[in-house]
Amino acid sequence: MKFYIGIDLGGTNVRTLLVDELGKTYSEVKDSTDRENGPDFVCDKIIGQIEALDTTACGGIENVEGIGIGVPGPVDTKNGVMIMATNLPGFEDYPICDKLTAKFGLPCFIDNDANVAGLAEAILGAGKDYATVYYVTISTGIGGAFIVDGKLVSGGRGHAGEIGNIVVKNNGYKHGGLNAGAAEGETSGTAIVRKGQEELGDQVIHAGDVFRLASEGNEVAKNIVEECIDELALTFADIAHTIDPHCFVIGGGVMKSKEYFYEELLARFNNSIHVGMRGHIPLLETELVDCGAIGAAMLPMSRLK
Amino acid sequence: MKFYIGIDLGGTNVRTLLVDELGKTYSEVKDSTDRENGPDFVCDKIIGQIEALDTTACGGIENVEGIGIGVPGPVDTKNGVMIMATNLPGFEDYPICDKLTAKFGLPCFIDNDANVAGLAEAILGAGKDYATVYYVTISTGIGGAFIVDGKLVSGGRGHAGEIGNIVVKNNGYKHGGLNAGAAEGETSGTAIVRKGQEELGDQVIHAGDVFRLASEGNEVAKNIVEECIDELALTFADIAHTIDPHCFVIGGGVMKSKEYFYEELLARFNNSIHVGMRGHIPLLETELVDCGAIGAAMLPMSRLK
Repeated sequence: MKFYIGIDLGGTNVRTLLVDELGKTYSEVKDSTDRENGPDFVCDKIIGQIEALDTTACGGIENVEGIGIGVPGPVDTKNGVMIMATNLPGFEDYPICDKLTAKFGLPCFIDNDANVAGLAEAILGAGKDYATVYYVTISTGIGGAFIVDGKLVSGGRGHAGEIGNIVVKNNGYKHGGLNAGAAEGETSGTAIVRKGQEELGDQVIHAGDVFRLASEGNEVAKNIVEECIDELALTFADIAHTIDPHCFVIGGGVMKSKEYFYEELLARFNNSIHVGMRGHIPLLETELVDCGAIGAAMLPMSRLK
Repeated sequence: MKFYIGIDLGGTNVRTLLVDELGKTYSEVKDSTDRENGPDFVCDKIIGQIEALDTTACGGIENVEGIGIGVPGPVDTKNGVMIMATNLPGFEDYPICDKLTAKFGLPCFIDNDANVAGLAEAILGAGKDYATVYYVTISTGIGGAFIVDGKLVSGGRGHAGEIGNIVVKNNGYKHGGLNAGAAEGETSGTAIVRKGQEELGDQVIHAGDVFRLASEGNEVAKNIVEECIDELALTFADIAHTIDPHCFVIGGGVMKSKEYFYEELLARFNNSIHVGMRGHIPLLETELVDCGAIGAAMLPMSRLK
């Protein structure tokens, strides 16, 4: 049995696990990130967490195969650094992998949190029986990850899976730095809340409120839901025509309302893809909970051969 | 040095090559397909072509590593059959790979012609220095191929690269079985001719005429070109957000007019992708000519490890 260390480095918390190749967790250390103290401080905290892991199961840290880190933002996987670090000030180009390798003598890999969650789902979760998996998370934003034979395709600049910027509506809503009419601006949880509040006011606090109102027969809410399902179907269809995945695995908060839209999404997705693909690409729901650190632990497994 | 046999099986001609792992051709046999005689006839013709190859360079066919076939249409790469065979009647589900393996005792692989051309460009052509390559052909139709570390990602149903069906214009032109506003219906060579003829009549015979008229200052042609460049940029951006390729390689007849649109396409593409990707994804032109059979010969190289 091989063992790996996985680190889920978020803007709020940082969590370190000792995991085996089947995804079983043996030891866990968790703490607040305290990002305001800067990257050296956070790096020392991570080193402390790794040292605090109980490595009895593998007979000591010297028997660990590698370390993986999941971070919120795009990374340069080759050089082991973040490219943008909005939620981790100072981590842009910070040599976190080099520092951990120097300290522990272990290979260290980094990728963004959506990629890492997708990797966990592809290896251990809903996608484990499929040769290629496209993971999609529909939450505050929309992100994704592509996994081929258990390996992440992170892309030339670590931006594979930035599907929130796929345009689904010409001249649509302009959200932050994204394209006008990008999927994230039109059909993420945030977008559904925005559209709901614009037309329905205070009745809408969460995306789920729009789906509930639609199911109760509210015509305005029904129109919003219709449009969002069309735009989601289009996003999935664009991805499917690009790489024809063996399955999609879908996660994120919006899936809490899946009873209101899943069947219709599947129907419209199939109606928007080539006839030869119809009915052949399942849209599966995620199976794992809180899988960031486990997915990070899978990064070395995905890269070391 | 390893040797492979590549077969470019088209609706009109069939061509068989003996190729080495560097893409050098040692022997070639070519004939009309005579597809109207059915798949058994065509299969026997291919067997005859393989037997007619001069295999002196590798010391006989027993020293060939494998056979690859490129065909016009989506394939089931796992079972070695075509899924749809509009241009090769009777080849749907026809066990061409099994037949060649039974005859010659060599592993045999099949993929569609765009994938095979993309593979050749990725291994031997413009993409040879890049870890991941997305090949795009803009011609009568629009197709593509995704190559990761010299291996084709054909997809669950062999439909990876069917990017002509990516929607670039909501409620746009409906072309054949494709989505309304699909890239192929809006900005392929055929689409540019259609738009040109609708608005400019007989002045337009080829897509190149629209580009030329635009460059001469014709306002109608300029508008058509503007719209098509926007739609192409969007197609490339959607692909880039899905898998962030290390480069695009672009081929097809429309590239003959590249002097009229390439710089503007590159600018708009970079304007439509995430800020962290801008300037990092080159749009390269194909380097190889008539590479179908060579690409087919690369299929076993891409799969045998």
